[in-house]
Amino acid sequence: MDGAGSTATSGPDAATVQALTDLLDGRWAWVRQRSRTEGVGLLAPMEPGLPRDEYRARVTARVAELAEMGYPAMGFPKDVGGGGELGGSVTAFEMIGYGDLSLMVKAGVQWGLFGGALAALGTERHHAAYLADVMSGKLPGCFAMTETGHGSDVQSLGTHATYDPGTQEFVVRTTTPSARKDYIGNAARDGRLAVVFAQLVTASPGETPVSHGVHAFVVPLRAEDGTVLPGVEIEDDGLKAGLNGVDNGRISFDDVRIPRGNLLDRYASVAEDGTYSSPIENPSRRFFTMLGTLVRGRISVGGAAGSAAKEALTIAVRYGDTRRQFEAPAYEDRPKAEVPVLDYLAHQRRLLPLLAKSYALHFAQGELVEEMHELQKDGPIEEKNERRQRELETRAAGLKAISTWHTTLSIQTAREACGGAGYLAENRLPQLKADTDVFTTFEGDNTVLLQLVAKNLLTQYADHVGDLDTLGMVRFLTETVVDTVIERTAARTVRDRLAAAVPGRDDEEELLDRTWQLAVFADREEHVLEGAARRLRRALKGDAFAVFNEAQDHVLKVARVHVDRLLLEAFSRAIERCENPAAKALLDGLCDLFVLTTIEADRAWFMEHNRLTPARSRAVIKAVDVLCGRLRPAAVGLVDAFAIPDEWLDAAILR
Amino acid sequence: MDGAGSTATSGPDAATVQALTDLLDGRWAWVRQRSRTEGVGLLAPMEPGLPRDEYRARVTARVAELAEMGYPAMGFPKDVGGGGELGGSVTAFEMIGYGDLSLMVKAGVQWGLFGGALAALGTERHHAAYLADVMSGKLPGCFAMTETGHGSDVQSLGTHATYDPGTQEFVVRTTTPSARKDYIGNAARDGRLAVVFAQLVTASPGETPVSHGVHAFVVPLRAEDGTVLPGVEIEDDGLKAGLNGVDNGRISFDDVRIPRGNLLDRYASVAEDGTYSSPIENPSRRFFTMLGTLVRGRISVGGAAGSAAKEALTIAVRYGDTRRQFEAPAYEDRPKAEVPVLDYLAHQRRLLPLLAKSYALHFAQGELVEEMHELQKDGPIEEKNERRQRELETRAAGLKAISTWHTTLSIQTAREACGGAGYLAENRLPQLKADTDVFTTFEGDNTVLLQLVAKNLLTQYADHVGDLDTLGMVRFLTETVVDTVIERTAARTVRDRLAAAVPGRDDEEELLDRTWQLAVFADREEHVLEGAARRLRRALKGDAFAVFNEAQDHVLKVARVHVDRLLLEAFSRAIERCENPAAKALLDGLCDLFVLTTIEADRAWFMEHNRLTPARSRAVIKAVDVLCGRLRPAAVGLVDAFAIPDEWLDAAILR
Repeated sequence: MDGAGSTATSGPDAATVQALTDLLDGRWAWVRQRSRTEGVGLLAPMEPGLPRDEYRARVTARVAELAEMGYPAMGFPKDVGGGGELGGSVTAFEMIGYGDLSLMVKAGVQWGLFGGALAALGTERHHAAYLADVMSGKLPGCFAMTETGHGSDVQSLGTHATYDPGTQEFVVRTTTPSARKDYIGNAARDGRLAVVFAQLVTASPGETPVSHGVHAFVVPLRAEDGTVLPGVEIEDDGLKAGLNGVDNGRISFDDVRIPRGNLLDRYASVAEDGTYSSPIENPSRRFFTMLGTLVRGRISVGGAAGSAAKEALTIAVRYGDTRRQFEAPAYEDRPKAEVPVLDYLAHQRRLLPLLAKSYALHFAQGELVEEMHELQKDGPIEEKNERRQRELETRAAGLKAISTWHTTLSIQTAREACGGAGYLAENRLPQLKADTDVFTTFEGDNTVLLQLVAKNLLTQYADHVGDLDTLGMVRFLTETVVDTVIERTAARTVRDRLAAAVPGRDDEEELLDRTWQLAVFADREEHVLEGAARRLRRALKGDAFAVFNEAQDHVLKVARVHVDRLLLEAFSRAIERCENPAAKALLDGLCDLFVLTTIEADRAWFMEHNRLTPARSRAVIKAVDVLCGRLRPAAVGLVDAFAIPDEWLDAAILR
Repeated sequence: MDGAGSTATSGPDAATVQALTDLLDGRWAWVRQRSRTEGVGLLAPMEPGLPRDEYRARVTARVAELAEMGYPAMGFPKDVGGGGELGGSVTAFEMIGYGDLSLMVKAGVQWGLFGGALAALGTERHHAAYLADVMSGKLPGCFAMTETGHGSDVQSLGTHATYDPGTQEFVVRTTTPSARKDYIGNAARDGRLAVVFAQLVTASPGETPVSHGVHAFVVPLRAEDGTVLPGVEIEDDGLKAGLNGVDNGRISFDDVRIPRGNLLDRYASVAEDGTYSSPIENPSRRFFTMLGTLVRGRISVGGAAGSAAKEALTIAVRYGDTRRQFEAPAYEDRPKAEVPVLDYLAHQRRLLPLLAKSYALHFAQGELVEEMHELQKDGPIEEKNERRQRELETRAAGLKAISTWHTTLSIQTAREACGGAGYLAENRLPQLKADTDVFTTFEGDNTVLLQLVAKNLLTQYADHVGDLDTLGMVRFLTETVVDTVIERTAARTVRDRLAAAVPGRDDEEELLDRTWQLAVFADREEHVLEGAARRLRRALKGDAFAVFNEAQDHVLKVARVHVDRLLLEAFSRAIERCENPAAKALLDGLCDLFVLTTIEADRAWFMEHNRLTPARSRAVIKAVDVLCGRLRPAAVGLVDAFAIPDEWLDAAILR
């Protein structure tokens, strides 16, 4: 076993790196490859510091070019003229995440959110009327859900669409100042139409109006010449931390009348006389079914965030490999020389675990995209697939949260790892940080998303396994692990093995045993989930808010450890798929690093729950040190495998 | 004991908040008060998004106004026409940290770095020639130390100043591309003169040139009309993540000749014939003595960073107090209502520990400034004070690192806690984040600074206490704790008390015992320091680099736990000084939160070293939850006590 922090010898050869790239590229490799060749200029980041109006204009122009390239249409169903390649479309979005992030968000608003809502919540009529022009970019639009007063709790939106049977119109109204639509992309400059989320209100004559909950409506914002329509008021959100090529704005409606047909009526309709009907009785379930169809946005953000993190890590790792600082004295046949900063253990420990997690997230994201593709490619979700859809939403929410936080941390760490150079715009990191910073709170605030994940897991737990014994529980939690990986595990011994630091045994051997690792993650999830369920049961009698609130951190942990398990399983499966032995060995080491840094970060929990002895816990720390040193020579190869074109990296320190 | 996350009842009254402000304002309260009144407009942040050239011009103009206000002169010695108020000057700098941070950095470069170097490293001649114009701002200058290739390892700078006895001049030369001076503030636009750090080289005729290490020289950059002088090449560093009102640039010298008298010769001189002499024999010690006189810059950055963190936390806490999201069901006499987000435990846990640490850092910073003031107010450090000076440098380095990382984390957390609103420039947080991000790597890279701290502590350990027994060690480590606080501690029982979760005892009572807390921190420091010393001893035989590198994380931990102890001790002393009982009680709770979140974050270490049982560790988590709920009603009062004028907060969401 090499010592920690050993100096680089040699990295992986080109064939190994290529094998890694092939594995990472996965099912939609052709989309990635096309982005790197044909799309390389179009997607490239624009120079930082452009004046706002010029930047916006250039992004708008590029959106049009992107439409010509055919990427956007790829994501729409075949029967409306799209390519039916949902997964390919999300993969394309991930690739735009390497480039100009304002372009990515603007495209995401136009085709993912606005177009996606029309496709998923509208019916044939809406598709025929709008989708061709949406795909071509001729009809720029907005997705107007968030309000100034309601970002997370969107069931409580304050915009009303009240049906008037006299004229067969809906009257759209911003009922309070805090009901103003806010942060809406495409609103301040370009949007002609908006999908507006509002409380649908009906009233039979002489009766009290009834709200049926939030629904989506098509509301025109601007005439073809760009003038804002009467009753609509639009304000610019002004300068932002980043993404200043996107025209975010605020929209208020003062009794804007729209035809009855402008209700996107896949899940509910209002008859001429104002009678409301929906195939889904429960208003809350109906709303979440509608939201669920929009899961693609969340998946896309998670993927694009991953790209930005990989880019930042690529810059920091390559720079750390060549940047030298301080001399090491001569020793044996090593001459006195300045040390590349990536040879320092502290530097390795900052960057390499993030790199390992980036790989883990990448493989989990790939599986998520495939599952979404399989589930949604043939149109609306069928009833029999509802459970799969719910699981997809849970995974999408969890991965989005963990991926975007990982991105924030990775870019911050990369920036600091590059010192003063990391602060200069010419080295790309400032722009990456500024542009991605909102990812943790848009498309669902991460904390709220993790609560959603936990809620779904707890519900599932209550539904399906409330009465299973412990062994059954472990099996349930690991049922998605491929058999080849899990069959070696004897779940009943997991806890014993975790707790013991068997004297005389080679600690490292076990710490690096994948089966043991999978069992550790599954066992932790089971225990955290069971505990949370027990605590929350108290809410049945007493102050539910207080019970929930006191358990909030525990509940958030349910989601975190669940995602950790998803990541490890996806990483394991990816390694099984890898056919190049050298690449496989590298991935094995990287996966070990992911696992052990995850355990290390949470080792207090493992000790508190008698799953690690103090001595074993210290062995984990040591094993991470050793792994860092062992992976150090491969670090540059591991980032090269992301195959990010130089035009996108665009950092002066790499030239 | 209240339950965790209990809803706000009422905060501290105005008198209590005022008592907190008085305590925080401390010795130089008049400087703070003057900044808040007279200086409120001058220091206020400028609107974000100004075009670079306009922003730079406005900052330059404000620097001149600042000089008229008299702040800068305050920091210079009386005998050169200054005010001799070193501490007041650093306090003023801390106040500018609430306002426009480009102004702060530009002022820091002019008076702290450039002027400070002239004052500390020059002699009467230099003082007479330059300081009046430096103080008035008439002579803008640069502090040219960092090079493209050498940011942290400044002993290895590649700029040479070679003495030519024939003309009695130094020839200044950028010897390699990586020896180019880089990131130099005031260079790209305004600087007329620079203090340049370069290897001083002398050569008797016919002999090999000898380098005497890095020294400081006065080198003219621009003529009075602003044209760059012959042999000097200046390049703009271009757009940066933030601080774009500062004109950072790169400077190269092509055999620029300066008179012999331009060597700042307090610590070394060169005779006409080229004979070098210095009162300090050892070149490394000489260099670090010179650097040590510049400690004020580091102290100032730590203080200003603290201001930015307080500002961000003020915005997030006030917003969290009024922003409501999701309804809590009715319970007993509490009606169904939307919940202020700061009532959620997860939100409290994000913000309140940071607030507690801000207080701890503030009090430690105050002590540091006073110590610097006492030590340096009468001019050059006397021999007898060298140990105090070294301790000051250690504390300054440690506090700078921990304070600036705290700022990065606090602003990031505040930004996310404000959701989408936190991403808009109108809410100030983006500018705060972008401007302060470089603090963690300038004025000493934080990781390198922590290594310096650890090195000093280890040296001190070897010098003074290598042979003391454990009890002696604990006493040594706590010798700076005021008697009133520490006399209740019986150090010998510390370890026993730490390890035990005494059944039947009220856990919380002990966790909140300040004496116990102080002992815990001191004991941890002792143990980590001893262990590191033991590991590093191995370097005496074998590969010193490998031994050091493997122990790097351990060494960094020495510094971290040392700073934790400094913070706790300073916080404790501040509480002792507080005479308002209500304020004192609040501070007590806040200090407990600081201590327990610090222990919580490191509880794995405490378990690994048998200082906490798993049960006790879980009790710490619970105690943090409870403290958060208990402090929640006081949160707004605790940020109000910072007394930040509205003009500086300048966030639309607070209006």
